Amino acid sequence: MKHETTFALKGNICFSESSDQISVHENSYLVCENGVCAGIFKELPEQYHGICVRDAGDALIIPGLADIHLHAPQYSFRGMGMDLELLDWLNTITFPEESKYADSDYARKAYSIFVEDLKKSPTTRASIFGTLHVEATELLMDLLEETGMKTYVGKVNMDRNGPDILQEKSAAESAEATLRWLSDTADKYENTKPILTPRFTPSCTDELMQKLAEIQKEHHLPVQSHLSENMGEISWVQELCPNTSFYGEAYEQFGLFGGEECPTIMAHCVHSSEAEIELMKKQGVYIAHCPQSNTNLSSGIAPIRDYLDKGLRVGLGTDIAGGHSLSMLRAIADAVQVSKLRWRLVDDRLKALTFEEAFYLATMGGGEFFGKVGSFQKGYEFDAVILDDSFYRHPQPLSVRDRLERLVYLSDDRCIKGKYVSGRELF
Amino acid sequence: MKHETTFALKGNICFSESSDQISVHENSYLVCENGVCAGIFKELPEQYHGICVRDAGDALIIPGLADIHLHAPQYSFRGMGMDLELLDWLNTITFPEESKYADSDYARKAYSIFVEDLKKSPTTRASIFGTLHVEATELLMDLLEETGMKTYVGKVNMDRNGPDILQEKSAAESAEATLRWLSDTADKYENTKPILTPRFTPSCTDELMQKLAEIQKEHHLPVQSHLSENMGEISWVQELCPNTSFYGEAYEQFGLFGGEECPTIMAHCVHSSEAEIELMKKQGVYIAHCPQSNTNLSSGIAPIRDYLDKGLRVGLGTDIAGGHSLSMLRAIADAVQVSKLRWRLVDDRLKALTFEEAFYLATMGGGEFFGKVGSFQKGYEFDAVILDDSFYRHPQPLSVRDRLERLVYLSDDRCIKGKYVSGRELF
Repeated sequence: MKHETTFALKGNICFSESSDQISVHENSYLVCENGVCAGIFKELPEQYHGICVRDAGDALIIPGLADIHLHAPQYSFRGMGMDLELLDWLNTITFPEESKYADSDYARKAYSIFVEDLKKSPTTRASIFGTLHVEATELLMDLLEETGMKTYVGKVNMDRNGPDILQEKSAAESAEATLRWLSDTADKYENTKPILTPRFTPSCTDELMQKLAEIQKEHHLPVQSHLSENMGEISWVQELCPNTSFYGEAYEQFGLFGGEECPTIMAHCVHSSEAEIELMKKQGVYIAHCPQSNTNLSSGIAPIRDYLDKGLRVGLGTDIAGGHSLSMLRAIADAVQVSKLRWRLVDDRLKALTFEEAFYLATMGGGEFFGKVGSFQKGYEFDAVILDDSFYRHPQPLSVRDRLERLVYLSDDRCIKGKYVSGRELF
Repeated sequence: MKHETTFALKGNICFSESSDQISVHENSYLVCENGVCAGIFKELPEQYHGICVRDAGDALIIPGLADIHLHAPQYSFRGMGMDLELLDWLNTITFPEESKYADSDYARKAYSIFVEDLKKSPTTRASIFGTLHVEATELLMDLLEETGMKTYVGKVNMDRNGPDILQEKSAAESAEATLRWLSDTADKYENTKPILTPRFTPSCTDELMQKLAEIQKEHHLPVQSHLSENMGEISWVQELCPNTSFYGEAYEQFGLFGGEECPTIMAHCVHSSEAEIELMKKQGVYIAHCPQSNTNLSSGIAPIRDYLDKGLRVGLGTDIAGGHSLSMLRAIADAVQVSKLRWRLVDDRLKALTFEEAFYLATMGGGEFFGKVGSFQKGYEFDAVILDDSFYRHPQPLSVRDRLERLVYLSDDRCIKGKYVSGRELF
């Protein structure tokens, strides 16, 4: 699809440059050149005279949000079955639903809904779990590609501890299917890339992990999985992997845990030990903090303040359908909210996250996994969302910064009036 | 306003009969006679042939929700200033905003927005704080009366520890203003009733409490206030009232703490002692559980499971603007969510609330404060809300009960297609 190579958006521009501050440029021009942010100006400099300007009026313009953990096939049951913990929830609700994606007609119907709603959301980048089914995962990638959003999508690997209806017969079969999927989709897409996706340690034999590690090296793939989400899960991993001293090692022993050659997202990290935290830091693992899911599944509250203080990489995820809302704006509010409860109830040495910090996590924090993404600083990819808050009436004057906070708390997809990814207008 | 005395709504009817179960009547008729629920029928019995039927199609019909704690003047700053605890938040944000309601023009502008949004919400009953200003509070009551919702509204009393801009000069002045307000509004409204509203113990001298107690007895008024929300607040009350052994006694010593002659709502009760809990039970005090506010202001999580086990009266409140959302559907989801975190982080002897229980709290739990309200059992007042969830697409068949849970989690005012209070159609 063609797009103007140089253009500007005009409005109230808000973005992070660091984790503790949101820069606000009222009624200004944000210029895009060849898909990249070229600058912010109160008046357009002469070199840009005559470029196309989309005037968003009094609306807010923020960087696109990066949802670094969610499950596309689970979107169908979001907001339902909310009275279970992780392992029961997987067996009772998740696995039976995911098994339906063996049927491509069902997958098409379900994924079309998911992809249309994701397109309307403030998310511009995402790292997404599919199911173990190659055909359905390719279908999901086809649909995502058309939207213009930039995503990683994973065909899930699982060869143990699943139900008969949702399990690959052997490590060999799982690896073979993965190679078929990679071959089918190689160079097929501009926006949609594969990511290696062992479901989590309880679902993958050592033999499978070994094969995936070989595939990872050969194809230079990034990796996504789950880590230290739930106490029952952690004990189970300890039983399954008696040779490891903590959960993260179950991935690390196969070379599937970060490092320069293996960019990795680990979802949750609610109950990570000091040793695990240290290893995540050393390996540059991205932590996908999913506060809504960790609440819904009674998992707990991850110590994000601690991770930030220690310099770890952290982004936010909606974790559909452990989380029920597809909105990354809601994820920002949730991150602040649960951090307050953690401060109050668990450890008052770890201060609650500020609004500025949570906004940073949803933009630059997770955006970094996709490159120079998540800010409007010069040289960042031009991912932008236009938010109209006129629906929320108020009797008093409000600062742009306060309007942004309010939008995040009252978030609603009616507010989203425009979306750009790498300079391309999606709507 | 006239309305048909006998009519029916047709759709998927969902309501509580007890705290552990939601009754579902698919594609059925809910008959209203003289403002009261007369029965639910799969086919209309002969006696009702020819009555007016509003066919809601595949929509859900639930009892109107009772919001038993919120502050109308704070609606203007909902979702902003979310990085403070209670006492700082009151001084920095709340009191300066409330002081503006001395200006009737400002009050009209602000309250019009609040009342219009409340009308569009799923709330049919509410117990609302105004400000200390008589004129603005009467204006709020005028606006609420017009909507047809049934509400209690309180002119706030506060004669100590406030800022100069928001404090009554003396107990006498506060009492006099209260009497003026009661006289102005006596017999003026069909739907809107006064409720005595000492802000909270730190804001009211003993002399004022004494005068309010006299007014309460003379005018047979119900009472609303705040209790044991925040640790700093509780310590402060202990200093202010050295003669009491717990916070609740600061109200009880003046006879402003429940009992048959003084129906009372106490908001929060996050940190109530055993003695306080016992007294609330004895006095039949209604606890307004406000999970979103208790999260936003880092107050903590009230032990609602414990209160239910002990047979206390509990309803839900949005607590605008400690809570940011006016939606009581959201309050239901929040109540479930925080109870899970409490189970996980504080006390795993207290099981999380189920969806059914939280739905009960928002309907029958709080509804009881208003009479036979909050259910569709025969003889209950006909408060009903029509919810259309067709906006939330899904690939699989769903039960009505699951659709209700999903609606609560994904709640959005676009779903609310109709609202009735005591049989009167608001829209």
